[in-house]
Amino acid sequence: MRVLGIDPGSRITGYGIIEKVGNRLVHVDNGAIYTGDHKDFASRLHRIFEGLCGVIEEYRPDAMAIEQVFLAHNAQSALKLGQARGAAIVAGVNAGLPVSEYTAMQVKQAVVGYGHARKEQVQQMVKSLLNLPEIAQADASDALAVAVCHANSAGMKNILRSAR
Amino acid sequence: MRVLGIDPGSRITGYGIIEKVGNRLVHVDNGAIYTGDHKDFASRLHRIFEGLCGVIEEYRPDAMAIEQVFLAHNAQSALKLGQARGAAIVAGVNAGLPVSEYTAMQVKQAVVGYGHARKEQVQQMVKSLLNLPEIAQADASDALAVAVCHANSAGMKNILRSAR
Repeated sequence: MRVLGIDPGSRITGYGIIEKVGNRLVHVDNGAIYTGDHKDFASRLHRIFEGLCGVIEEYRPDAMAIEQVFLAHNAQSALKLGQARGAAIVAGVNAGLPVSEYTAMQVKQAVVGYGHARKEQVQQMVKSLLNLPEIAQADASDALAVAVCHANSAGMKNILRSAR
Repeated sequence: MRVLGIDPGSRITGYGIIEKVGNRLVHVDNGAIYTGDHKDFASRLHRIFEGLCGVIEEYRPDAMAIEQVFLAHNAQSALKLGQARGAAIVAGVNAGLPVSEYTAMQVKQAVVGYGHARKEQVQQMVKSLLNLPEIAQADASDALAVAVCHANSAGMKNILRSAR
């Protein structure tokens, strides 16, 4: 199973692709789509959508995973973030991918084994789990983390199903 | 010039298409895309995106217009609204449409001639301007209003240009 994790933002959208081979997680690619140079908000959303459509076309993932957001304190920034998320999610569903959401705590639990892990611990663990040569760009690293969370949760569901 | 106005929401997305023929505004169609029956938020966004792609394909508008949002007080509802807006805007930009945003005050000014008009006045004026048999569904009416605002603003720009 190949998973595309995304961490959408109105300026930087991180993405990470991993493959689950048996019980092993293999890093495929990660990167970030930068949109900050477009003043026009509609062009930013289009850049996110197009960029992710390109990633999906290139790597053909089986599923998309995204972190749930509860932290947006400010309504105006929540609206911006929501627009970026909307553009990103539509890229996934339009390509026929199932989209799963995970809370930050689920992601940390899945990656570090501890739901209250610090950001640096998560980044370090993503690097080590996926044998990356260095810590990935922050948003790409978050995207890889949610992909890892999905790959492991999906594995759990399969284990639960076969145990019945 | 044919304008698609939209009023995106996570449960109901209104749309309205008008055509500017000379100085006359002609109603083409209006309607609402209902997504409340999908529990899955990604499916809702997909429904909005697909629905608007269908409207664009059918009516081939030249431009998309949307109201700016400043009113979202609650961050969680702003996030939801943002996601719906993102999905809707991507449908437009992906079809090559320029997307323009107008404040609520600009829309009211353009439709009623008074920036602090009440919602009912705007709905009544949209009905009367476009010769509708009755007041359109609330979100569709808002979508028509922002389309009228764009059609008239674009007209103004042309007038200003030709006067030089």
